[in-house]
Amino acid sequence: MTILHAIELLGVAVFAVSGALAAGRRSLDLLGVVVIATVTATGGGTLRDLLLDRSPVFWIADTTYLYVSIAAALLTVVYARYRHPPERFILIADALGLALFSISGAQIAENAGYGGIVVVIMGTLTGAAGGMLRDVLCAEIPLILRRGRIYATAAIAGIVLYLLLQTLLDRTTAALVGMAGIAGLRLAAIIWDLTLPVFSLPKSENEET
Amino acid sequence: MTILHAIELLGVAVFAVSGALAAGRRSLDLLGVVVIATVTATGGGTLRDLLLDRSPVFWIADTTYLYVSIAAALLTVVYARYRHPPERFILIADALGLALFSISGAQIAENAGYGGIVVVIMGTLTGAAGGMLRDVLCAEIPLILRRGRIYATAAIAGIVLYLLLQTLLDRTTAALVGMAGIAGLRLAAIIWDLTLPVFSLPKSENEET
Amino acid sequence: MTILHAIELLGVAVFAVSGALAAGRRSLDLLGVVVIATVTATGGGTLRDLLLDRSPVFWIADTTYLYVSIAAALLTVVYARYRHPPERFILIADALGLALFSISGAQIAENAGYGGIVVVIMGTLTGAAGGMLRDVLCAEIPLILRRGRIYATAAIAGIVLYLLLQTLLDRTTAALVGMAGIAGLRLAAIIWDLTLPVFSLPKSENEET
Repeated sequence: MTILHAIELLGVAVFAVSGALAAGRRSLDLLGVVVIATVTATGGGTLRDLLLDRSPVFWIADTTYLYVSIAAALLTVVYARYRHPPERFILIADALGLALFSISGAQIAENAGYGGIVVVIMGTLTGAAGGMLRDVLCAEIPLILRRGRIYATAAIAGIVLYLLLQTLLDRTTAALVGMAGIAGLRLAAIIWDLTLPVFSLPKSENEET
Repeated sequence: MTILHAIELLGVAVFAVSGALAAGRRSLDLLGVVVIATVTATGGGTLRDLLLDRSPVFWIADTTYLYVSIAAALLTVVYARYRHPPERFILIADALGLALFSISGAQIAENAGYGGIVVVIMGTLTGAAGGMLRDVLCAEIPLILRRGRIYATAAIAGIVLYLLLQTLLDRTTAALVGMAGIAGLRLAAIIWDLTLPVFSLPKSENEET
Repeated sequence: MTILHAIELLGVAVFAVSGALAAGRRSLDLLGVVVIATVTATGGGTLRDLLLDRSPVFWIADTTYLYVSIAAALLTVVYARYRHPPERFILIADALGLALFSISGAQIAENAGYGGIVVVIMGTLTGAAGGMLRDVLCAEIPLILRRGRIYATAAIAGIVLYLLLQTLLDRTTAALVGMAGIAGLRLAAIIWDLTLPVFSLPKSENEET
């Protein structure tokens, strides 16, 4: 097992924990917790693989991701019986997961021969779409679309930085700086409460437009 | 037409009826009823085919599934004008549909060369994901994730049973026992009100974790 | 750039505007507006390409669609700061987008070797599923499933007309008449408030059927 693979599995575990906690806040049953945790952890990469027509999907090719995700969800349930989950730790771990998955998703799109905006979208989907699917299954407007502290925006900024830096640096260094940029921007957004401006129209009488 | 194909079409019809009734409870228009019924009946298999990269998707390869689903939805609307739909009959038929689709979905994954957890997931998706998509389109947290009588859990248990029994029995017998296990567990869950434990956390002020 | 390509880009822009306005009514942030606009504009064609296993997906093959969609979303935000968006203009433009995408989606399915109901479904998905995904992301029952003025139904009727006319006319003329039929039926539905009948059942105590 390479170090990269180990880090990726850690990212899956972190996202699964965040999904399990979200499921707990909606009082789902045990299967629901495992499903939401797994969708949160693997949904972004799955969407990327379907759109890029990569076959088989990454968690079918390597089922370790599934086992890690299920184990993380169940451990979260057990842990939460005894102690309050440490919110700060999870926010930091989630920022690292976002950074890692966004850049690794971008590299997968690059390896498939794409560039520019397709790489940015695939990286952002890999990092942030799992949380979006989690919210859709919880019948809520996805958090990252609502007024929230910068999240997918950090992924976009970091991937663009990574792409630009490749003209100056080698790919590995550019990737590390891109990841640091994503995690740093996300954590800065949490600390200083950075948000994007909101676009707000009055509710129309005619919802059909 | 083989007996298996006939049974599968019956399963599609049953799921379409359950989708049409769910649509009726949300007062959708006629097209909405047909769409929800068809998504309920074919959504699980569609997701399986997309994830396994089976092309074409089963209802494109054999459009009979679509016609059966649309006809079942329209007959449900006509029938419900005159008589109350027989709830007990539908619960039993739905349990049979779940049993049939879960095992046939598992076999499709096996035939594509997969084993273990991938077979369990593909079988469960085939049987239970149509109802999940139905609930997402109805803007509700999917029933099978909320506290409900055991549903997808029955599919998982029956598929695992089917996989284990293949070491002892021939594949057809194992499949039949697996299906009986799913239908039996689901009906037992309805009769004795069996549920999974619920994982419940207080709503956090900070929804971003 | 051919005329057809120019018209398609116009259709994407129109759908993106309608998506951005829907996002504004739910007070999403700027990234949310761009995401909802892009999903509205490209979601139907994406679903079609995934189901038909066309690779790469159309907006990966030609990223102009993405740039047009993002630009249209941002221009909508800027415009709406100063003036009320002209509802009538948007309804008409949306009807034209629906007409165009439904017939072009039908032709893509025909070119892939399909006929009959598969062509009707793929055309309707191309025209109407973007709006459905927009509503799912906004955690609402999709407008086209609820009692609303005829929308997807217009697409279905126009595609059937297009298929029937091909026995009498050349394909291009049939396509133009089909498009006119869709736009005309949709606009007539808006003017005279045409709707489909609604199927309404009492909410059951037992939501599990």
